[in-house]
Amino acid sequence: MSESTPNPAYNTVRPTGRATTELRPLSIETGYTRHAEGSVLIKAGDTHVLCNASVLEKVPSFLKGKGQGWVTAEYGMLPRSTHTRSDREAARGKQSGRTQEIQRLIGRSLRAVFDLNALGERTLHLDCDVLQADGGTRCASITGAWLAAAIATRGLLQQGLVASNPLIDHVAAVSVGLVNGRPVLDLDYIEDSGCGADMNIVMTGAGHFVEVQGTAEGQTFDREALDALLDLARDGIVELVAAQKLALG
Amino acid sequence: MSESTPNPAYNTVRPTGRATTELRPLSIETGYTRHAEGSVLIKAGDTHVLCNASVLEKVPSFLKGKGQGWVTAEYGMLPRSTHTRSDREAARGKQSGRTQEIQRLIGRSLRAVFDLNALGERTLHLDCDVLQADGGTRCASITGAWLAAAIATRGLLQQGLVASNPLIDHVAAVSVGLVNGRPVLDLDYIEDSGCGADMNIVMTGAGHFVEVQGTAEGQTFDREALDALLDLARDGIVELVAAQKLALG
Amino acid sequence: MSESTPNPAYNTVRPTGRATTELRPLSIETGYTRHAEGSVLIKAGDTHVLCNASVLEKVPSFLKGKGQGWVTAEYGMLPRSTHTRSDREAARGKQSGRTQEIQRLIGRSLRAVFDLNALGERTLHLDCDVLQADGGTRCASITGAWLAAAIATRGLLQQGLVASNPLIDHVAAVSVGLVNGRPVLDLDYIEDSGCGADMNIVMTGAGHFVEVQGTAEGQTFDREALDALLDLARDGIVELVAAQKLALG
Amino acid sequence: MSESTPNPAYNTVRPTGRATTELRPLSIETGYTRHAEGSVLIKAGDTHVLCNASVLEKVPSFLKGKGQGWVTAEYGMLPRSTHTRSDREAARGKQSGRTQEIQRLIGRSLRAVFDLNALGERTLHLDCDVLQADGGTRCASITGAWLAAAIATRGLLQQGLVASNPLIDHVAAVSVGLVNGRPVLDLDYIEDSGCGADMNIVMTGAGHFVEVQGTAEGQTFDREALDALLDLARDGIVELVAAQKLALG
Amino acid sequence: MSESTPNPAYNTVRPTGRATTELRPLSIETGYTRHAEGSVLIKAGDTHVLCNASVLEKVPSFLKGKGQGWVTAEYGMLPRSTHTRSDREAARGKQSGRTQEIQRLIGRSLRAVFDLNALGERTLHLDCDVLQADGGTRCASITGAWLAAAIATRGLLQQGLVASNPLIDHVAAVSVGLVNGRPVLDLDYIEDSGCGADMNIVMTGAGHFVEVQGTAEGQTFDREALDALLDLARDGIVELVAAQKLALG
Amino acid sequence: MSESTPNPAYNTVRPTGRATTELRPLSIETGYTRHAEGSVLIKAGDTHVLCNASVLEKVPSFLKGKGQGWVTAEYGMLPRSTHTRSDREAARGKQSGRTQEIQRLIGRSLRAVFDLNALGERTLHLDCDVLQADGGTRCASITGAWLAAAIATRGLLQQGLVASNPLIDHVAAVSVGLVNGRPVLDLDYIEDSGCGADMNIVMTGAGHFVEVQGTAEGQTFDREALDALLDLARDGIVELVAAQKLALG
Repeated sequence: MSESTPNPAYNTVRPTGRATTELRPLSIETGYTRHAEGSVLIKAGDTHVLCNASVLEKVPSFLKGKGQGWVTAEYGMLPRSTHTRSDREAARGKQSGRTQEIQRLIGRSLRAVFDLNALGERTLHLDCDVLQADGGTRCASITGAWLAAAIATRGLLQQGLVASNPLIDHVAAVSVGLVNGRPVLDLDYIEDSGCGADMNIVMTGAGHFVEVQGTAEGQTFDREALDALLDLARDGIVELVAAQKLALG
Repeated sequence: MSESTPNPAYNTVRPTGRATTELRPLSIETGYTRHAEGSVLIKAGDTHVLCNASVLEKVPSFLKGKGQGWVTAEYGMLPRSTHTRSDREAARGKQSGRTQEIQRLIGRSLRAVFDLNALGERTLHLDCDVLQADGGTRCASITGAWLAAAIATRGLLQQGLVASNPLIDHVAAVSVGLVNGRPVLDLDYIEDSGCGADMNIVMTGAGHFVEVQGTAEGQTFDREALDALLDLARDGIVELVAAQKLALG
Repeated sequence: MSESTPNPAYNTVRPTGRATTELRPLSIETGYTRHAEGSVLIKAGDTHVLCNASVLEKVPSFLKGKGQGWVTAEYGMLPRSTHTRSDREAARGKQSGRTQEIQRLIGRSLRAVFDLNALGERTLHLDCDVLQADGGTRCASITGAWLAAAIATRGLLQQGLVASNPLIDHVAAVSVGLVNGRPVLDLDYIEDSGCGADMNIVMTGAGHFVEVQGTAEGQTFDREALDALLDLARDGIVELVAAQKLALG
Repeated sequence: MSESTPNPAYNTVRPTGRATTELRPLSIETGYTRHAEGSVLIKAGDTHVLCNASVLEKVPSFLKGKGQGWVTAEYGMLPRSTHTRSDREAARGKQSGRTQEIQRLIGRSLRAVFDLNALGERTLHLDCDVLQADGGTRCASITGAWLAAAIATRGLLQQGLVASNPLIDHVAAVSVGLVNGRPVLDLDYIEDSGCGADMNIVMTGAGHFVEVQGTAEGQTFDREALDALLDLARDGIVELVAAQKLALG
Repeated sequence: MSESTPNPAYNTVRPTGRATTELRPLSIETGYTRHAEGSVLIKAGDTHVLCNASVLEKVPSFLKGKGQGWVTAEYGMLPRSTHTRSDREAARGKQSGRTQEIQRLIGRSLRAVFDLNALGERTLHLDCDVLQADGGTRCASITGAWLAAAIATRGLLQQGLVASNPLIDHVAAVSVGLVNGRPVLDLDYIEDSGCGADMNIVMTGAGHFVEVQGTAEGQTFDREALDALLDLARDGIVELVAAQKLALG
Repeated sequence: MSESTPNPAYNTVRPTGRATTELRPLSIETGYTRHAEGSVLIKAGDTHVLCNASVLEKVPSFLKGKGQGWVTAEYGMLPRSTHTRSDREAARGKQSGRTQEIQRLIGRSLRAVFDLNALGERTLHLDCDVLQADGGTRCASITGAWLAAAIATRGLLQQGLVASNPLIDHVAAVSVGLVNGRPVLDLDYIEDSGCGADMNIVMTGAGHFVEVQGTAEGQTFDREALDALLDLARDGIVELVAAQKLALG
């Protein structure tokens, strides 16, 4: 995109004045808590997610004795991470459908870049807990969980518990959507609430798709719009993967 | 596709000999049960789903007094619809994450083609129960639920309970996936289990996307593969919408 | 009953004009689904129940290592099998007392005609799912479950997995009740709702009782009425057992 | 039965030497607890059940505004009422199917002798809690719950809260069964465990049936045996109703 | 306290005229039920608790193979033990926070006087069920549960199942509170509802503290008041321990 | 305590070298999240708790229409806040007894310093979520929740929603215990695991007791030890209240 002409991505479409192609400010703090084998506080703008990776020396029963590991995830939002207080899922006695959908997505996304045989018969359990929410919590969870997983697997390598790195590529996620008909990157809560169609895209460091989830509750979209959204997401994910590399050192 | 040259879609890639571009035989029986306002038994090959639409003269509490209606869905599999018996969710005391994910998808897909104001302050409740499963149950559920909804709304029109048809377009769904690296339409269970990446695509009669859900647990995929899968899905959905029209008479 | 005199069983007592001694039209379709070891769709008038028998190579923990098998049942109604939609038990998170009572009855009834030692250390799990309800679903479930069980045990014999047939007699069930003070056979929903007292009778092919369950919420009944109801049920069950024999071939 | 010849009911069939036609010693203590509107500790041999009747000035939602009342029951066994400790249902998080079946039976039995219009828009809630179990707990619960209900309704009359007695007849229950092929009255735990077929019979003071529940898990039974069991039960219930009258004063 | 001057503990502070230093009448009936290894009905005034001790030949999984035993407790109130009927916890599907808090307290209190090694690899399970409540149910439960435990362990000794008595001291509990600013012993329900601060004190026969639980929801209290309450409780517990000794014989 | 002589509180009793009378380093960050009406991250050494206060314009049903408010609390630990990962309570489907006990304690403690009439008909809901645990989480929760509550009520005052401050005093909490027989202040996880007796003391700014909870699972304690522990706690709470004042500004 040429710098000498007015940047068409800067316009009035976004309440915060961000460019349509611009990620929110990203902040990554590793070692945020001390007990987890990998711990990362990721902040995408006002969305803050604590991602902890636990190494458990056991596997689910369907994998016992098969010599391979497992990667799974759980997700939660603190009751007052949101604008108005939500019920505590532990008090209600069950996780919502939304919560289960998100934690299944995080798990699948991480497993796509894991060599479960190289992991050995152990489980990497990723806990993504939203401390503060402003849209895009599932994407921030995936991007942050990858970092927590990377720190945990580096520990396994350093302790000689695995012979080779079971983590074979980066994985990161970003949302895109049509706001007032224009493709926009990395929606915050206000944009997400108002947008006609939104997608969550999960990609590897190699630029391949892991998950493509587009939903049009308010407004269906055609192939051209889909293509524009996929382009936008690809560029955002390149930036996120670069940030992961920087944070890992 | 030219008929005079060998059809490249016919090949050894599919266990059943189906062409890669070929839907499973589709059978639709309306009026399958007598109590529901709309009742459809849809068979996509060996996947059989009973879709019942109920008209309820109430709305969820968040819509009370707003003069608009709601469309929602529930999904279930009979315990022995599958190759080996699954636990009954009612006996286990909760719906699985997969079940909740699917019923949320069906509800969103149907709402995308509904004018909820035209529906009035009532709920259209869609129950999709899988009697026999062979892959693609969520897609068959959406295609069948649309028909059950169409029959139920036709009834509302005939009884003068709504002034105009709240159903503004068709919606249908199909799965596509990469089997041995080749794009294939409408996966059955064997194909689904073995495929690297699969997508569920939900589109309107106008050819717009409602949901795009692609997952690569075994094998990530690039943009070119994604494009081929989307093309394949579009053609399949054109056929499904034609079958819906035929079934409605 | 003499054919040359007016049949006193034909009268105005029944809304449908059926004789008081007449079963509803019975239809039995074997092999209704393809995965279950025994699958039967039984229709008693407008009551339709899908009965699937699954052979599971395990037994409940209280039987482990005892060399004997087990027979158990689960029952469910599709939400819109009824005149008005009922809540889905899986969504509510528990089975109702009525559901549990019925599935315990089906299990006991089937076990009464099983030689659990001959079955060997495996479980026959019967799933009775009501697709459409018009009264008498528990009785149709028992009659249909016996057929599904018979098909499944025939399969065990043919595969040489059991040395002798673990199924030692027929079992079938029918409801009877007092409608306007007159004994009536095989109540449909309208009759059941309005009747003073109703009984569910389960008998073997040899004409012995397995279960006798009579309830008088609206109107208590004396010994004479009880005797008349038991006579009526016995005749009905003779017919049902004949139909089971025919269906098995 | 002639008194001058050896009583054939006295024989070796019963472990305790009781006659086959003999009830267990019955003890009834009214006013056992102080808060309930009716409170009865009933002891049938070693089966001890505390029956409390509560008058609640509300009705279930399906009866609101209809000017009629409701009678319902709950049943529980203390964990160590039994020979070996059972799990506490409150700790397991649900009532068993057996518990629900029994409390539904108690409720239906009591409602059969209530004029719900005369009760007015209030609920009589019966709690039957087994302090010590030795067979026949559901029957003792019904016989005792009737007494608790009678005390509570007497209180309503005395306070002028009802114009006429909503309780229109007695109801009592007893078990009978075939032990070593002989009909036996009021089974204790040992007899119940070993018997081929057993029945629970609920009758009114007028000698009419309210519930007839016969089960043959181990041994089916013919009409002659059924008749003998019903005769035996009738005589036992006459004695129980007499004891209720005595206890009420 | 001098006997020749008016006893300042007798005053108008208590609705029942009890002295502020006076326990409620205590009644202990051992062998109340026949199946439990230790069974005690304890009555502290109108608070009646049935305490059953069960000896189970198993330990929780965290103790398996460690050669030591476990002592645990469960607590429940019958629905109509209270002035107005409470919901049955088994029907609601979960134990309240209060119930769990109390049963944890009972378990800890008993374990404080047990030599778990001497008990061997078995569990002493204490069930405390409130038949009638008038305040102080948790304290009566502890005092009664100790007796049930003592009877059960005496049985173990007599049968030679343990070499030495695993029960190494008495434990008993009493409530104290500030009623109208005055320290009062053994609160009944009316006093408990109205008091500003109340404490539950659990002590051993040797006069040592096991649990000290003081709560000031309505009125905070200073050190002097705390000291007075602790003195009062100590004296009450001396009396309770004497009663335990008497009851054990 | 004189500075010129060796401080007897400094000894080898504590693994970290802390004095027995020394609190862990305390850090308080207000405004940690942006949506809550009061948000505080409190760190007592390695125990980090996020305390959010939400103002809800509703009260529980038992207070409706009474013109007074309510203060309540919920507590949770992130799964990997602990040394080894704990199950997520939302996934297990219920809160543990410990969780419920703690959140009831926090609620009672806060209510002790609230004028619920001055609060008006609204609820102050306090969420205490442990991000990292190292002992003393319930005490840190209380001390931090008070701050979150103070910020929220200051907001109510500033907006003119309340006429006077409903918060009438400070409340703070600290643990004390006997480690190797010596009284020690503010136990960390290692000390807590190994100590014979521990107490949680909640006091007001005026130095009055709100809650006194002492437990001796491993080792009972006498009155002298109790007195020493209470003295120690009082001094600690004076420091905590000073820190609260400083943090509020």
